[in-house]
Amino acid sequence: MLSALTVTDIAPPPVIVLVRPQLGENIGKAARAMLNFGLTEMRLVKPRDGWPNPSAGPAAAGADIVLEQAKVFDTTAEAVADCAHVYATTVRRRNDTKPVVTPEEAAGQIHTSPGRSALLFGPERSGLDIQDVSLARTILTVPINPEFGSLNLAQAVILCTYEWSKGRALAQPTTTEQFPPAPQEELEGLIAHLEGMLEPKGYFFPEGRAEATRRTLRNVITNAGWNHLEVRTMRGVLTTIMRGGPKA
Amino acid sequence: MLSALTVTDIAPPPVIVLVRPQLGENIGKAARAMLNFGLTEMRLVKPRDGWPNPSAGPAAAGADIVLEQAKVFDTTAEAVADCAHVYATTVRRRNDTKPVVTPEEAAGQIHTSPGRSALLFGPERSGLDIQDVSLARTILTVPINPEFGSLNLAQAVILCTYEWSKGRALAQPTTTEQFPPAPQEELEGLIAHLEGMLEPKGYFFPEGRAEATRRTLRNVITNAGWNHLEVRTMRGVLTTIMRGGPKA
Repeated sequence: MLSALTVTDIAPPPVIVLVRPQLGENIGKAARAMLNFGLTEMRLVKPRDGWPNPSAGPAAAGADIVLEQAKVFDTTAEAVADCAHVYATTVRRRNDTKPVVTPEEAAGQIHTSPGRSALLFGPERSGLDIQDVSLARTILTVPINPEFGSLNLAQAVILCTYEWSKGRALAQPTTTEQFPPAPQEELEGLIAHLEGMLEPKGYFFPEGRAEATRRTLRNVITNAGWNHLEVRTMRGVLTTIMRGGPKA
Repeated sequence: MLSALTVTDIAPPPVIVLVRPQLGENIGKAARAMLNFGLTEMRLVKPRDGWPNPSAGPAAAGADIVLEQAKVFDTTAEAVADCAHVYATTVRRRNDTKPVVTPEEAAGQIHTSPGRSALLFGPERSGLDIQDVSLARTILTVPINPEFGSLNLAQAVILCTYEWSKGRALAQPTTTEQFPPAPQEELEGLIAHLEGMLEPKGYFFPEGRAEATRRTLRNVITNAGWNHLEVRTMRGVLTTIMRGGPKA
């Protein structure tokens, strides 16, 4: 059970999630970038060439502990299931309704918000896809030369981990007692609950629009930033709705 | 001639100086890191494999303009001759008398100090040597995991250029009118002048200690941060001393 977090709680270090990384070498470089700034928890979503990958070790330049402890997941949603705050790193700002922050702003939030944070990084060539982004409440964008934006995966990771490390020294615990946003798995439960209710009603019809409609719904729910109690309340609301009539 | 700089002056972008870089690939990556954050002026001191280097282009990932405009120098002193502020990047703090700043602090200084700045980066394997460091008034060190410090050349460059780019938005011109420190070549002239006076007096004796003594002297002069007028005054002082007696 979650309990109220108080001023004395320190936010745990963020998890670095590499989504469908292509090259083992880049996984190794990301591990090196992490450990340089004191982060050790790496998660991999469907690495293209499987895991472990023999190219990762040499590129990690000694950051073996990060690679050894890396966990592999089938989906991005599973990789962030226990995280209260999910950041999707993208190079350019997308036209959507999520707030966009810099690495520095994200670091400040991570240090002062209770609950675990995850930073999502997409595949080298394409970046995060729209489904991955829809898991996040916040977009993280490195402010870059508008005429030459060419950050590779490890560079994006190092700028974010560097800012987190910098912010650690500056972090001030918040003085208000508050609950963290619900873990992602509770959010997933709520979304599934809602979709299960909407599906038979034809909400996702026509078929060609179904995916976009689901994404929109997910974004709305995700952006709410509900905590455990709020999610539980909403689950109760849905359950109540489905009962179909006043209690006897 | 130098003139007083006023509140309306904006400091020029810093020069990135790679001292004896070993791999062309790393020169290319550094160029990419620079252009990502809007910097274009690269200087190379004795690149190991000569210049141009065919491995640099592919690694620059499109930052060709930086490589095409790169200038090559025989010595670090020549590479920073026109610079008022020289920063030596080192991984660990050295036991010397120069101030040590973070990339963020350096960026703040660069934006608010009149005169051109240079950031020196050493060879991949060994870093800057003690002679290179003695050219600088300030040490720039990335605060890093004390148990795992493993930044490569391009990563060190990107963290510094990223901070410079961030600071650009925040930079506030200083309100006091001031002169920048003298260009490095004026400082060299002063040091040579002084050494030329000391040499015949046996100041650099015994031979085995001469290099360390020269370095100490250079550090003392460099750390003073004298401007053009102050250097000129000191040159006058030395000339006067050498005259050997009161004016007839």
